[in-house]
Amino acid sequence: MANITKKVSWSSRADETGILGEGTPLLNGSEQLTHSRQPSEGRSVFQIGRLSTVDLEEEITSDEDSQRGRPNEIPHNEKLLSLKFESLDYDNIENQLFLEEERRMSHMNFRCLEISRWVVCGLIGFLTGLIACFIDIAVEELAGIKYQVVKKNIENFTEVGGLSISLLLWAVLNSAIVMVGGIIVAFFEPIAAGSGIPQIKCYLNGVKIPRVVRLKTLVVKVAGVICSVVGGLAVGKEGPMIHSGAVVAAGVSQGRSTSLKRDFKIFEYFRRDTEKRDFVSAGAAAGVSAAFGAPVGGVLFALEEGASFWNQMLTWRIFFASMISTFTLNIFLSVYNKNPGDLSNPGLINFGRFPVDGVAYNFYEIPLFIAMGAIGGLLGALFNILNYWLTIFRIRYVHRPCLQVMEAMLVAAVTATVSFTMIYFSNDCQPLGPEDKKEYPLQLFCADGEYNSMATTFFNTPERSVHSLFHNQPGTYNPLTLGLFTLTYFFLACWTYGLAVSAGVFIPSLLIGAAWGRLCGFLLAAITTPAPLWADPGKYALIGAAAQLGGIVRMTLSLTVIMVEATGNVTYGLPIMLVLMTSKIVGDYFVEGLYDIHIKLQSIPFLHWEAPATSHWLTAREVMSSPVTCLNRIEKVGTIVDTLSNTSTNHNGFPVVVQVSGSDEPEKLCGLILRSQLIVLLKHKVFVELARSRLTHRKLQLKDFRDAYPRFPPIQSIHVSQDERECMMDLTEFMNATPYTVPQETSLPRVFKLFRALGLRHLVVVDDENRVRECWCFSTTQSRHSTA
Amino acid sequence: MANITKKVSWSSRADETGILGEGTPLLNGSEQLTHSRQPSEGRSVFQIGRLSTVDLEEEITSDEDSQRGRPNEIPHNEKLLSLKFESLDYDNIENQLFLEEERRMSHMNFRCLEISRWVVCGLIGFLTGLIACFIDIAVEELAGIKYQVVKKNIENFTEVGGLSISLLLWAVLNSAIVMVGGIIVAFFEPIAAGSGIPQIKCYLNGVKIPRVVRLKTLVVKVAGVICSVVGGLAVGKEGPMIHSGAVVAAGVSQGRSTSLKRDFKIFEYFRRDTEKRDFVSAGAAAGVSAAFGAPVGGVLFALEEGASFWNQMLTWRIFFASMISTFTLNIFLSVYNKNPGDLSNPGLINFGRFPVDGVAYNFYEIPLFIAMGAIGGLLGALFNILNYWLTIFRIRYVHRPCLQVMEAMLVAAVTATVSFTMIYFSNDCQPLGPEDKKEYPLQLFCADGEYNSMATTFFNTPERSVHSLFHNQPGTYNPLTLGLFTLTYFFLACWTYGLAVSAGVFIPSLLIGAAWGRLCGFLLAAITTPAPLWADPGKYALIGAAAQLGGIVRMTLSLTVIMVEATGNVTYGLPIMLVLMTSKIVGDYFVEGLYDIHIKLQSIPFLHWEAPATSHWLTAREVMSSPVTCLNRIEKVGTIVDTLSNTSTNHNGFPVVVQVSGSDEPEKLCGLILRSQLIVLLKHKVFVELARSRLTHRKLQLKDFRDAYPRFPPIQSIHVSQDERECMMDLTEFMNATPYTVPQETSLPRVFKLFRALGLRHLVVVDDENRVRECWCFSTTQSRHSTA
Repeated sequence: MANITKKVSWSSRADETGILGEGTPLLNGSEQLTHSRQPSEGRSVFQIGRLSTVDLEEEITSDEDSQRGRPNEIPHNEKLLSLKFESLDYDNIENQLFLEEERRMSHMNFRCLEISRWVVCGLIGFLTGLIACFIDIAVEELAGIKYQVVKKNIENFTEVGGLSISLLLWAVLNSAIVMVGGIIVAFFEPIAAGSGIPQIKCYLNGVKIPRVVRLKTLVVKVAGVICSVVGGLAVGKEGPMIHSGAVVAAGVSQGRSTSLKRDFKIFEYFRRDTEKRDFVSAGAAAGVSAAFGAPVGGVLFALEEGASFWNQMLTWRIFFASMISTFTLNIFLSVYNKNPGDLSNPGLINFGRFPVDGVAYNFYEIPLFIAMGAIGGLLGALFNILNYWLTIFRIRYVHRPCLQVMEAMLVAAVTATVSFTMIYFSNDCQPLGPEDKKEYPLQLFCADGEYNSMATTFFNTPERSVHSLFHNQPGTYNPLTLGLFTLTYFFLACWTYGLAVSAGVFIPSLLIGAAWGRLCGFLLAAITTPAPLWADPGKYALIGAAAQLGGIVRMTLSLTVIMVEATGNVTYGLPIMLVLMTSKIVGDYFVEGLYDIHIKLQSIPFLHWEAPATSHWLTAREVMSSPVTCLNRIEKVGTIVDTLSNTSTNHNGFPVVVQVSGSDEPEKLCGLILRSQLIVLLKHKVFVELARSRLTHRKLQLKDFRDAYPRFPPIQSIHVSQDERECMMDLTEFMNATPYTVPQETSLPRVFKLFRALGLRHLVVVDDENRVRECWCFSTTQSRHSTA
Repeated sequence: MANITKKVSWSSRADETGILGEGTPLLNGSEQLTHSRQPSEGRSVFQIGRLSTVDLEEEITSDEDSQRGRPNEIPHNEKLLSLKFESLDYDNIENQLFLEEERRMSHMNFRCLEISRWVVCGLIGFLTGLIACFIDIAVEELAGIKYQVVKKNIENFTEVGGLSISLLLWAVLNSAIVMVGGIIVAFFEPIAAGSGIPQIKCYLNGVKIPRVVRLKTLVVKVAGVICSVVGGLAVGKEGPMIHSGAVVAAGVSQGRSTSLKRDFKIFEYFRRDTEKRDFVSAGAAAGVSAAFGAPVGGVLFALEEGASFWNQMLTWRIFFASMISTFTLNIFLSVYNKNPGDLSNPGLINFGRFPVDGVAYNFYEIPLFIAMGAIGGLLGALFNILNYWLTIFRIRYVHRPCLQVMEAMLVAAVTATVSFTMIYFSNDCQPLGPEDKKEYPLQLFCADGEYNSMATTFFNTPERSVHSLFHNQPGTYNPLTLGLFTLTYFFLACWTYGLAVSAGVFIPSLLIGAAWGRLCGFLLAAITTPAPLWADPGKYALIGAAAQLGGIVRMTLSLTVIMVEATGNVTYGLPIMLVLMTSKIVGDYFVEGLYDIHIKLQSIPFLHWEAPATSHWLTAREVMSSPVTCLNRIEKVGTIVDTLSNTSTNHNGFPVVVQVSGSDEPEKLCGLILRSQLIVLLKHKVFVELARSRLTHRKLQLKDFRDAYPRFPPIQSIHVSQDERECMMDLTEFMNATPYTVPQETSLPRVFKLFRALGLRHLVVVDDENRVRECWCFSTTQSRHSTA
């Protein structure tokens, strides 16, 4: 993935020069305090949430490292967490402004808001469906042209000899198309590389991945995925739909585009992390729904990956977006296919109808399915391990954009060559039935009225190949074809995932699985020759596809439902579930899922479902970042500016404390204020003195914060004069007066649960006498605190 | 529902005697603060929950009312919340014992636990499937016998005249069977009445409904539902499956049965609210799954109703239980149907296969579907309003068990009479096709080779009737039959729901909807005679069924998925969703869903998804219960016993405070201890003095608390001598040292979110200087606190 490569290229550059930028990936060290806890506690934090990103100690460590010169032998360590990432704040900032606004709102206002949420979800679904439709039609048309050209060429040269020229044409054509896709991704928007699913997983998990939901990313993603698929890579166009849906949601729900510099002045209420994240869930669901025609699967995907807090109305809205999305796609594609009103294209890929009459499967086939699940788990783990090594290699050596584009072109050329070779040496000729609707049957060396079966597999879009593997009559493919295809496609797909092109891994996985699944079905039929009826190869192809996909991505409930919905037949629910469960268990024994591997490789602080089982030993005090920077309720502007400018403690949240006047008691916590709020306050010069002198001065409103969301300017861009530095700022109105707090003895699982369930970014740790003797802060990502 | 009636009968008895028991349903008073807060504050606790239900003014009013003598004309008020119910604690009690145990556990232990969770879920699914299977077979066999008898009798008398004797036989037979069902429910276990879905909704919501998950309840429920269905009432056997699944789960997961006095010494770790509630979710899901053959729908039901915290592994386990459940049912039923390995009976009801070839529906039919959704919403609202009035009537006048049984018998007799009359006067004869597999075709006055169509509708189990309405050829029913059937069945079903019998409302709703839906299809076909092809009456029956069911129960995503899974065809997903959405919107405009109405009528403190939109005005201080009862960390046994025995403040959680020795500072919060823990401590006499004198005294372990769970003895049953009253108890080891706290200025939505997301029972409110000047406690249900 470009993102990784990007980061790593930076990382290795730093190594070369011996200079560590401020973005150094850091380990979280909570224990610098007690020393010697070092190696394990970075992870412990990590575990907590790594949330974070980092803990102080490790930061310090790495700072020391940088002073001593960073050890060259560790150019990349996925156990370190990157500081690039901040977390989303799912907690509303309940300051006085917010409460006043909420209190001003009538029931009618809330109803209007609710209606606009529905409207936004409808729009998200509609636009996502349209994008899916556009991608599908573009791929169909362009691939059609390409295959026509190549096919004509091959046919010409089959007669006269000199097929190597056809090969050359094919390889060059593919490389050229992939080059375009690679260039836009590598040079313009590296975050658009890959399927985007790891990034969206992280976003829904609460990690803000820079640039991931921008309009530019969407454009590059769409163009990139078209190029990749048309370029004949072993990729699918389904994964990127999820990312596209998420971007659409983030854009539509904010009612403006920062890239286009257009503000439609609508949906202003939704301009905060809480609402935006909800809408992005809906967008991701709509993407899944459009990709697989699986609206329920989409909802479950969004929930499984993102929503820690399940809300009935939210879920229902997400479902609405999903439904609209698949329906839009369906309508437009039916019009495109000149069959309006047909509604038989609910998704970009359809597994087609499996026979519903008669017995779908028998009781005694279930152990076979489970065995296939185990095979899928093994193959999936192998795939992931190979891809992991490959990604590490890429991170170290293939980090320049031009190298990345060249690698993509190489893969494209190799894919074409391998395909061609296999087609060339294959002698699997099948009769061309009159009713056969294959769009690009290739006669090659077969007799008249026959076609080359291997060519069909390689010469179609992967979606069509999956469909043929599921549904072609028994005997369409011979076992050697299937075996060879599995083998080559496995390695091609593995090599392809992680290239700097937009592409998904769903379809290649399905294809590999379907191929070996069909092979299994074939073998079973051969073994049980007397009564081979029950070994329908299409059914085994489906099971194999599920096993392979499950072994690679390791999704659970959502994948089951997606597969069932794509099959259009709930009868296969149980076998698919058993297969996915087996493949997950087997696969997890060896290595994590592919997306998790890539998340880890990008050093993203991802928060898992539960605190590690054995983390009851740790308490909040041990994992929190300390010392914290506290601000007074009425604070000098200069102090605030200095605090914000302090790059060594780049905190994002600051506890606000108050000193009881004239007493020597320790300061007490009275609120929490965020960096973003302080920036807005400074920008609008909300100083006590100015308010007094200019009585007409407009009072700062929530709108001002919303307008600045989400790209708050850096502190460096705000000019504060020397006079102004002496002014005071009253934070009372703007701070969150009731931040969540925990005593410092709270066990880690308890803190974790609070973070996870409420989507917190900051949690103030108070001392066990419930007074703020010292102010401790515990934060999710990259918001650290030091004592004022 | 018997439960309601129960409560009300008590309620009216109280009125009769003029004495208000301590269990009086109370209003929530948040204003007691300013004097006289006493009686109401138990309930203030409530407010948070049903905030929705009550507002302040009303409380005060009713308090005044009660002082003036309770007005007799309000014997039941569903705006009051009952004190009968306590809440489940989804928060682990993280005291020292718990932490020590967790810390002792290795990774391997955690893995074993995880495996036992899976085993338990598998068992839950298996047993639930078995129960469903048992119910189904029992109903089939008994109903078969009954119909044979009645049919033979009718056939005899059709020839000789004197059909009134047949009617009598039928009515008496039905009444007798229903009487049995009524007696066991009304006299032995009133909580087993109805479908049990409202109760399970409440349980999953976090309200502990007494006796709801006992073995006895299960037995009565299963026997009761068989009687109701065989007795010919307008009921289904699906709803009760959900309750049955939940009971199975609660039993299996605890590894013992208190009713049977058997402790299998397994799964002891799961003996606490947190784990039990998770398993009950799985049980409910397994129930849905067995009822409708809808494993995904089951999971979504459990999540929609219960889980505020979505956890991937938990969801996956719930799904596993669901799958096992439907699979078990499938296998056993296929054996019962003498077709082993067929696996075509995934649920108690199957909608049968809808044609999948060709166009399922057209774009332009969607407005029609939406219109039908609106009709369903209206009819559903009408149903609910009628049933609401009826239930109020029952609560006031039909609260004695014998009256309840008589009402059930009356309904059974009326149902038989109405059916008979309609069959008698119907002249809708249809030819009896040779391939017709109707099991009880009734010739009656039809010509030879024909059967009475109305009789088919009334003379089958409701499941079969639904199936025929969905699938019979166009023209099978004439419109008058359908219209009359809709009308009568609507009122019968409405009258039946709420009787003191175990019965579900799903199937009657589906049946009513299918009837008028088919009528709609018929009319459409009549209107568009030139091209009536698209108006397949079966399809419209399905849409009508969805609309009617949605209008009555108002479930959202889960119902969509259940319907889709029962249909076995994802193509109908979009229309079903649109229909359910419309019927919910239309229905909600008039009245709540049926289950919510019954929950309200039972005065159960149900916590909704979100705090009321306009509740930002309220702060924790205003809604918490106060004054609280605090205990010292080392407290005199006498004080504890007195506190627990104080019936006027029947608290369940007590903040533990500590006084810094020799200082005059206010006491500081240092923990929270529960009534149940104190009871166990007292029972085991864990006194400081005794520990000193008897050094060998066994240290109290977590096991002791688990053994006592969940039926902790009342304080009255624990004998404490006068000497012992002078002893001290050290609570340090047993209290939860890090309870969740909020400042008293926290807004209500924030507090609500914390309660909802974490499933809390108690939340300590501390003053805004973060010191425990006074100790405030804020709890969900019925756990109140007064100052020490």
